[in-house]
Amino acid sequence: MPDFTDNLRPSQPDGPTTLTRERQQSNIATEELGQHLLGSDGFLERQARILPIIQQEPLFSKDQQQNLSRPERFKLGVARAKILRRMRDLHKWSYLEYQMAEYLVDDVSPYFLHMEMFITTVREQASEEQQSYWLPLIESWKIIGAYAQTELGHGSNVSGLELEARWDSRTREFVLHSPTLTASKWWNGSLGRLANHAIVVAQLLLPDPSAPDQYVSHGPHPFIVQVRDMKTHKPLNGIVVGDIGPKYGYITMDNAYMLFDQFRIPHSAMLSRYSNVDPSTGIYTKPEKPALVYGSLTYVRSNMVHRARLVLARAVTVAVRYSSVRRQFQDRDGDKMGPEMSVLDYPTVQIRILPLLATTFALHYTGLAMQTVYKSARQDIEKGNFNSLAHMHSMSSGLKSLCTILAADGIETCRRAMGGHGFGGGSGLIQVNNDYLSKPTVEGDNWMITQQVAAYVIKKMTAAVGSPDTPGVDETDARFKGFIRNKRRPGRTLETNNRQAYDAYEQRVIKKRNWNSLLIQLHKLSRAQSESIIVTTFFDALSNDKTLSTPIKTVLWDCYRLFALYTMENESFEFFRTNAVSQTDLNSLESRVQDLMARIRPHAVKLVDSWMIPDYLLDSALGRYDGRVYEDLFNRAHRLNPLNRITFNPNYWEDEIVKGSGDNGRGILAKL
Amino acid sequence: MPDFTDNLRPSQPDGPTTLTRERQQSNIATEELGQHLLGSDGFLERQARILPIIQQEPLFSKDQQQNLSRPERFKLGVARAKILRRMRDLHKWSYLEYQMAEYLVDDVSPYFLHMEMFITTVREQASEEQQSYWLPLIESWKIIGAYAQTELGHGSNVSGLELEARWDSRTREFVLHSPTLTASKWWNGSLGRLANHAIVVAQLLLPDPSAPDQYVSHGPHPFIVQVRDMKTHKPLNGIVVGDIGPKYGYITMDNAYMLFDQFRIPHSAMLSRYSNVDPSTGIYTKPEKPALVYGSLTYVRSNMVHRARLVLARAVTVAVRYSSVRRQFQDRDGDKMGPEMSVLDYPTVQIRILPLLATTFALHYTGLAMQTVYKSARQDIEKGNFNSLAHMHSMSSGLKSLCTILAADGIETCRRAMGGHGFGGGSGLIQVNNDYLSKPTVEGDNWMITQQVAAYVIKKMTAAVGSPDTPGVDETDARFKGFIRNKRRPGRTLETNNRQAYDAYEQRVIKKRNWNSLLIQLHKLSRAQSESIIVTTFFDALSNDKTLSTPIKTVLWDCYRLFALYTMENESFEFFRTNAVSQTDLNSLESRVQDLMARIRPHAVKLVDSWMIPDYLLDSALGRYDGRVYEDLFNRAHRLNPLNRITFNPNYWEDEIVKGSGDNGRGILAKL
Repeated sequence: MPDFTDNLRPSQPDGPTTLTRERQQSNIATEELGQHLLGSDGFLERQARILPIIQQEPLFSKDQQQNLSRPERFKLGVARAKILRRMRDLHKWSYLEYQMAEYLVDDVSPYFLHMEMFITTVREQASEEQQSYWLPLIESWKIIGAYAQTELGHGSNVSGLELEARWDSRTREFVLHSPTLTASKWWNGSLGRLANHAIVVAQLLLPDPSAPDQYVSHGPHPFIVQVRDMKTHKPLNGIVVGDIGPKYGYITMDNAYMLFDQFRIPHSAMLSRYSNVDPSTGIYTKPEKPALVYGSLTYVRSNMVHRARLVLARAVTVAVRYSSVRRQFQDRDGDKMGPEMSVLDYPTVQIRILPLLATTFALHYTGLAMQTVYKSARQDIEKGNFNSLAHMHSMSSGLKSLCTILAADGIETCRRAMGGHGFGGGSGLIQVNNDYLSKPTVEGDNWMITQQVAAYVIKKMTAAVGSPDTPGVDETDARFKGFIRNKRRPGRTLETNNRQAYDAYEQRVIKKRNWNSLLIQLHKLSRAQSESIIVTTFFDALSNDKTLSTPIKTVLWDCYRLFALYTMENESFEFFRTNAVSQTDLNSLESRVQDLMARIRPHAVKLVDSWMIPDYLLDSALGRYDGRVYEDLFNRAHRLNPLNRITFNPNYWEDEIVKGSGDNGRGILAKL
Repeated sequence: MPDFTDNLRPSQPDGPTTLTRERQQSNIATEELGQHLLGSDGFLERQARILPIIQQEPLFSKDQQQNLSRPERFKLGVARAKILRRMRDLHKWSYLEYQMAEYLVDDVSPYFLHMEMFITTVREQASEEQQSYWLPLIESWKIIGAYAQTELGHGSNVSGLELEARWDSRTREFVLHSPTLTASKWWNGSLGRLANHAIVVAQLLLPDPSAPDQYVSHGPHPFIVQVRDMKTHKPLNGIVVGDIGPKYGYITMDNAYMLFDQFRIPHSAMLSRYSNVDPSTGIYTKPEKPALVYGSLTYVRSNMVHRARLVLARAVTVAVRYSSVRRQFQDRDGDKMGPEMSVLDYPTVQIRILPLLATTFALHYTGLAMQTVYKSARQDIEKGNFNSLAHMHSMSSGLKSLCTILAADGIETCRRAMGGHGFGGGSGLIQVNNDYLSKPTVEGDNWMITQQVAAYVIKKMTAAVGSPDTPGVDETDARFKGFIRNKRRPGRTLETNNRQAYDAYEQRVIKKRNWNSLLIQLHKLSRAQSESIIVTTFFDALSNDKTLSTPIKTVLWDCYRLFALYTMENESFEFFRTNAVSQTDLNSLESRVQDLMARIRPHAVKLVDSWMIPDYLLDSALGRYDGRVYEDLFNRAHRLNPLNRITFNPNYWEDEIVKGSGDNGRGILAKL
């Protein structure tokens, strides 16, 4: 409906003018940096090719999704996931291409667990016979599966799971049974409404050979179980299953609860690549290397480390562009003649956004390094060499904890740095924030899994202390031995993270302190180790690079320094306490950080451009590439908001809500 | 529908058993502490009396509100607000009683601005004649009003507002006109769909006496304007107004955009208690004391300081109760015979929750002190004494910034400390978190308004430096003069916050550094000043108290120490750098904090009980008083979740979404 607002323009200088100038003032070649960051495995080429296909499909329009109820939004999620899968068939997409399409649509797929944990577990844990039966059904999506491990009462402590799988030697079946309410499966994605099968993890109960009417638990084991009827899609008798309800994010995911009442499954349901129960004797065969059973967890954590950079880059892209376009106040000490200042020129805005811009690159190189370590360790393991397993497990735990917290906190910091408009739906950060806030908790809570790093570090330090003068068997060993040799000589500067590792060793191994009493210290230790990995990896990546042009290299080095010094400033006292950095140097950090931000500032817009995040994915009025921030905000409000199609009755003495409807408020009461 | 899950119970020890034991192990009298905290102005009595009235009304059921779309949720908000207002008439509630009812229902009222900023502005800024016309209409809700100041392009910088109110001396009217898109009013609550009137803040443009065809701006001024037709509730001609769309929180608030096209309003529309335009000459009369115009801002900030404690108490109540009931893992160094440990017994959980528990009390005493300072300053001002205005403004700005960030971050810290279930809708923290995240931004962005503290502090320090040996004219002056006298004598310990104030003075006044280049330092200065106020106020409150019983006093002193030492630990290097605390003392903070947490831990449940937050307000499965966490989570999932009434078709090759509907996905597409 045309009206006088159609002819209005924002005040000058407007967003497009501002971003054009921002881009002109930097000599960075965004295309070159973009290729450096994302070109190697064809990511950018895929993105460019698949984006227009996605944007043509009306179901993928994001205009109204914030206005839907949970049930409607879930239906939309299912409709989108189905059409995405059909597009895969139609366009003959590889899995990488299909993942690109999903990444752009930006819904958590309600089929996600089918494609990830369900199929992966069958591939890794099922016997060859089981695989030949199940994999064709799974790959063709004839059946849809989920992964049901976590319970209402137990998440982190997997060995405390309560669901029972009791071997009935008479019928040669397992009996799945939930003895308590807390034994209910809980949180299991794709299972609440969609899946008809699931990997169900249950305590394996076998008759005690010495007292056959007693049962002994052999710990949690995976079973593949049909849970819904293939025709009616209703739960099978003896199973109660459903969606757990609204959550902070993941609105398109049907996280499940599921309970069993003496539900019988055949002997063949137990995934038996590593463990088995002899159907005739009921005798149990153990896996040779129990750690292998958890291989997929390390895989998932490594991926989270790698993916953190693009999530944070999204928030930083929005924040940098908007805070360039946004102007507020003139320079208090200036001549007050020109336009108001871009808010990104205020150090109090820079200190929130620019260290995070630097963090995107830090996370990038760390993500690559993590992938490399993971792949090489996997190759070793395939060859039967388990030497790198513990290191990989520790590194992926520590980095998962640190990188997901940097990204999660970073998104919110960016959002707040954008002031009022950052609170609005036009920020494009609401869904990504709500979804990403799951990451600090899932696949090992960020505060809990740092114990795994600490345990590894203490073990390595114990070994190093035992023979400090022999050559290091690996990098950590060599580093710790060097530290111990240095420690003997007075006046030597000692690295903070090694010092912390030694302190933890001393507390736990020498003084035999209770593990739980050390948890806070151990958490800090893990964080320091992981920060050290990120800083070192960033440094090495830039040092070893031979391809980047000088302007890019220069600003990336500044980003490196900013990340390192900003991180150090946040832990100043720790660096001082451990004698690693002098007080004079620590005192200077504040001004050095501010100087580095001033150096990076002119390149900020081009640096975020280099992450090449399409407007369609950003779905952000504030973060648009062209800077038409205010036009877009107004369009969303004035033309797209369905609430403006409803005229309300404001008189409190009348219970009519919608003007002229005479509904007496009954309409809304019926929904409660 | 009955099924086998009806008979299941959680594993033992269950929530009720655990919370009973928790309450038995503490000698704190929660009723006494509750009365101490909330008894004085009848808050608890009102809460107890009004709660059952509210819970009887079906519209106030919170069971389904997370499942509604934005338009439905807004309708529910309007329906609830109307019935609340009718209940006020019916029960003859005072405004305090009415506010209690709103607090319990916990919707941001879509009429909020009518009751607060609209009526307050008329009371404070309208002439007596204007008040006698408007106040009866406002108080009876015959008209509904809003407050339209912020624009699309300007929030913090009020003097940059673009909407024009041009005086037409021929017709003796003002002409409201939006010259640009960025001149659109934006964010103005209650105006998007509900209000028919608004206070509209616009640049007052008057003819230049020396060149009458030129106009001169006299800055932003408030006008009272009818914006919608009283019969049809449609916008008047020349006005475009609507709701800006979905936001992070505030789902029941219709924040508005509004533009004017040469819209004429009478001379009487300009609120003229302080400023006026002579209708015959067009000559402007200025307010005597411009700061008075912003009185209501200080009022709002003071209230935010006071309210922060109850918001944080809500999150801490949920976190403490749930993390007592939640058990995970046995003690690694223990005998592994008993039940798993309450997660609140892990120091890594304590360090996130218990300092926040201490913070609720710190915020409480600070809130009271802020209210006292505000009231006494208002009394002075009424008597024409403006001496305390600057101090009150600085204190309310610094504390608003610090206290809202402590509460906002605290809610999220509590949510994350609860792991997986903290991400679920049963936490009860989703809406409060989303709503409260507006607070760090509104009524002065938390990073921006710290400049107001810094400017005040530098001014006071400049005065103190000028005459350090004269008696202090107020507390700050005396403190700064004492600092300067101490500074002359070598070897004296100097307080960190005074040292920071002196450094800022030195940079700005002596070295004449650019204001903007100092912003980060000034922000830290404000934070330190405000932290010092909180710690000092907490200390004074406990020192001066004569009524509390010993057990309560003891644990509150521990909470005081925990808050103070935890705050200090987070700023260790600053305390070291400024020579205020020795390295040895700083080194000991970690273990002292851990010891204090161990002392407070047994009282944690009773301490949160003392905040007396009703289950109905918490709306949290995790935070229930009775500890039936798992029963409630299961009930919400299995019996209340509407998604479980829909059976889906999981086959991707069929575009049907709801099984058997044959809808071909058209239903959901129509909503896009």
